Amino acid sequence: MADMFQIAEIGATLPDAAFERMQSKLRLDMIRLQQKARAQGRPALIILNGVRGAGVIDTVNLLNTWMDPRWISTIAFDTPSDEERERPLFWRYWRSLPAAGSIGLYLGGWYSEPIAARCDGTMSAAAFKARLKQINAFEDALAAEGAMILKFWLHVSEPQQRKILPRVNRDPLIGFRASDNTWVTPKNYTTFTNVSAQAIRATSDENRPWFVVEGTDDNYRRASVLSALSSRLDKHCKAPPQPGIRKGPRKAKRNYLKAVAQPDAMSDEAYVKAFHKEQMRLHDLQFEARKKGISTVIAFEGWDAAGKGGAIRRLTYALNARDYKIVPISAPNEEERKYHYLWRFWRQLGRAGDMTVFDRSWYGRVLVERVEKLIDKATLARAYDEINDFERQLWERGHIIVKFWLHITKDEQKRRFKERKNTPYKTWKLTEDDHRNRKKWAAYEHAVNDMLENTSTSTAPWTLIGANDKQHTRIKVLQAVSSAMEEALKKRSSHQ
Amino acid sequence: MADMFQIAEIGATLPDAAFERMQSKLRLDMIRLQQKARAQGRPALIILNGVRGAGVIDTVNLLNTWMDPRWISTIAFDTPSDEERERPLFWRYWRSLPAAGSIGLYLGGWYSEPIAARCDGTMSAAAFKARLKQINAFEDALAAEGAMILKFWLHVSEPQQRKILPRVNRDPLIGFRASDNTWVTPKNYTTFTNVSAQAIRATSDENRPWFVVEGTDDNYRRASVLSALSSRLDKHCKAPPQPGIRKGPRKAKRNYLKAVAQPDAMSDEAYVKAFHKEQMRLHDLQFEARKKGISTVIAFEGWDAAGKGGAIRRLTYALNARDYKIVPISAPNEEERKYHYLWRFWRQLGRAGDMTVFDRSWYGRVLVERVEKLIDKATLARAYDEINDFERQLWERGHIIVKFWLHITKDEQKRRFKERKNTPYKTWKLTEDDHRNRKKWAAYEHAVNDMLENTSTSTAPWTLIGANDKQHTRIKVLQAVSSAMEEALKKRSSHQ
Repeated sequence: MADMFQIAEIGATLPDAAFERMQSKLRLDMIRLQQKARAQGRPALIILNGVRGAGVIDTVNLLNTWMDPRWISTIAFDTPSDEERERPLFWRYWRSLPAAGSIGLYLGGWYSEPIAARCDGTMSAAAFKARLKQINAFEDALAAEGAMILKFWLHVSEPQQRKILPRVNRDPLIGFRASDNTWVTPKNYTTFTNVSAQAIRATSDENRPWFVVEGTDDNYRRASVLSALSSRLDKHCKAPPQPGIRKGPRKAKRNYLKAVAQPDAMSDEAYVKAFHKEQMRLHDLQFEARKKGISTVIAFEGWDAAGKGGAIRRLTYALNARDYKIVPISAPNEEERKYHYLWRFWRQLGRAGDMTVFDRSWYGRVLVERVEKLIDKATLARAYDEINDFERQLWERGHIIVKFWLHITKDEQKRRFKERKNTPYKTWKLTEDDHRNRKKWAAYEHAVNDMLENTSTSTAPWTLIGANDKQHTRIKVLQAVSSAMEEALKKRSSHQ
Repeated sequence: MADMFQIAEIGATLPDAAFERMQSKLRLDMIRLQQKARAQGRPALIILNGVRGAGVIDTVNLLNTWMDPRWISTIAFDTPSDEERERPLFWRYWRSLPAAGSIGLYLGGWYSEPIAARCDGTMSAAAFKARLKQINAFEDALAAEGAMILKFWLHVSEPQQRKILPRVNRDPLIGFRASDNTWVTPKNYTTFTNVSAQAIRATSDENRPWFVVEGTDDNYRRASVLSALSSRLDKHCKAPPQPGIRKGPRKAKRNYLKAVAQPDAMSDEAYVKAFHKEQMRLHDLQFEARKKGISTVIAFEGWDAAGKGGAIRRLTYALNARDYKIVPISAPNEEERKYHYLWRFWRQLGRAGDMTVFDRSWYGRVLVERVEKLIDKATLARAYDEINDFERQLWERGHIIVKFWLHITKDEQKRRFKERKNTPYKTWKLTEDDHRNRKKWAAYEHAVNDMLENTSTSTAPWTLIGANDKQHTRIKVLQAVSSAMEEALKKRSSHQ
């Protein structure tokens, strides 16, 4: 038996009368805290897990009964659907997140699946450790953006469980709850508690600790969970936890943008020839990727008027409409602002074999938000890690990732702005923001270089394109996407 | 060959020079119209369909190229995913809808699937007709709420197609587009055009006509589609189409609420006994429903303080958290207001075997929105039909539908308001709205009676419960849900 559970095997009880006396205050506390969290506009995640017979379901029911149902919802994860299996592992957790001001009550959360898999041996010790690390990264990212994460582990000793389970099975109303397989509690008590202890230890920290509660006595369990919840939420509301200090991001080693060559203009003839060839190539590759269920995620970044839209249209020109989705990114809307900033990108991820093209992307965090000083230094440092983690998860699910920075010179931008101004059906493309951004060219250059330094990884490298010549750019984009797909598809077949 | 296509077999062409001259104006028109539609806050649906080789894909690409990509997205329906198959047929169409101010560009739309199925004989003539009727109801509902629906059918004659297809297949860039199977164009030209003609005829009306365009010549086709689109969108913006006059809803034949009996209070002992029994029963039924993949949709309506929340909690008390979802309904949020009023209910529908419990529901349309005069008479008349249609679609997919009106007397409500006021942890339940609504008791009574008259159908009947006694109410609710499930499950097994 793991040490940490000793304190939850003492046999604590609370008489009915004592609980009755507390009840009214506890109920009121719950409602008040909910209102407070709501006023603060922060999401709360309450995760309940534990051994069979320790009262997880009872606690979930109690919280549901006592809280304002408009702002709380219970979330339990079943076997993944095909739509879920086709996306990165954490996609379904991302899409389950409560909005700011709401509470998500997680039955088992993201812990039950790896714990069960580790117990029955289908997950290796190394994979289990890696998963716990991933959970930490996930919860850290949420907590850093203001989410309140409260985790309760309900425990009973093995002898107690032996006593409880038959009683539980006799009582029809409790009996079928104990047979609940929503969160899996493997039968081997020792293995389960050992594996759980490892998970609890590895995923507790100051900002999001696990509370281990003895579950034997109903009154005691309820009062303990509610009191801890109440004081913890209160603390959260008073002083949002500060994300730990991280080592700062790397400064760009050099001015990568300065080094980007601007190739000569391509002749029309050469362009048409190359265009047809590359279209055919991409079409065939996407056909193969669709067949194999391999998804491609493409992010377009670049200076205003660098030709992102035009390049994207040429990229998708030869593809079936059901094969790709173009996602134009601008400032987040009201709903999106209620979640972690990466949430709106997670939700756009397509199904197996889809190509998702982002016209501007999650890199807005380290570009416009940095330049416009919407985030502080610590947030910027985190952002690089969070972005790398996001892309790594795509890669782990087998997605192909291509990221473009379309680079034009300042003079070329000026020329294009003028052209837009003078072409009636193009003026709409030119906005106040464009001129405003142009004035901040140096700050953006700095941000882009740092971004390239910190987020060009082996799994998701950046492709820099000298984009003064549109035709050349479009061919380059097609070639880069095709090459990435070709490589990934080759690897995939050699694995089979 | 169907008559309606004759006009699209004339062999219309447009010289390059003429098209070039129009192009700048057409592009500008598109952008301006898009901005206009955006300013009006209305969604636009552009549906493109037609025979193979008539240029559907080319037109989609052109519109994508010319319009502001932020407010247009292309939608093509693939084979349904399991998540889609587990919901009513039109669920995936509902979830694809463009928000107010945006354009959805539908490649094939909801027409390709039934047309293909009818052509290959897997769909009967009767089923095809029924589907077209359902499409009309769907489009009518959207149009009535302000959606602009523009449908284009691109046509070429059979001899023309014979000429085009080999050329198309020779040209690599066009060739693979012609092999596009996103929207299915069966090989038998005559069958296809006959079935299509039937669909076009049955789904055209003044508000949402089909435009049949000859697709042989690229320039002519592009110019025709764009001109029609432009003038039609313009017309829409100037004068939103008025939904046709319908026969008015039935007036309530009698005061149904007056007739609701208020049973005597239940003894605690009888309640506990019945509660255990009914919990067991529901638990077993939901277990069976989950196994068979049969979903249950439950709507709770009733006077303020009628005990909806309490009844819902007792209903879900014995269920696994993953088996049900409680959806509390209040005023729609910013995002929800961008769609048809039923959209937010469609999106909440659960997967196969799920129980979805709405705490207040789509009936708000004919209750609070009617009483508060947020909708006019014509909209009210439509609402009954739209709601019946919605519930019929649930029923068609095999869902079980249970609808409750919890009825308390005016005196009992007064008593409960007072109790809430005096119990600290219940005061939050009492709002300004409650007192306000209480003053409008008579108007609500009228609205409820009309609602019962017009929406109690054989597939989705209302259950009226005299709810002055809470314990009795909770047992009744459990029994009603169980009975509905029992009946449905029995039918299902006898069908197997």
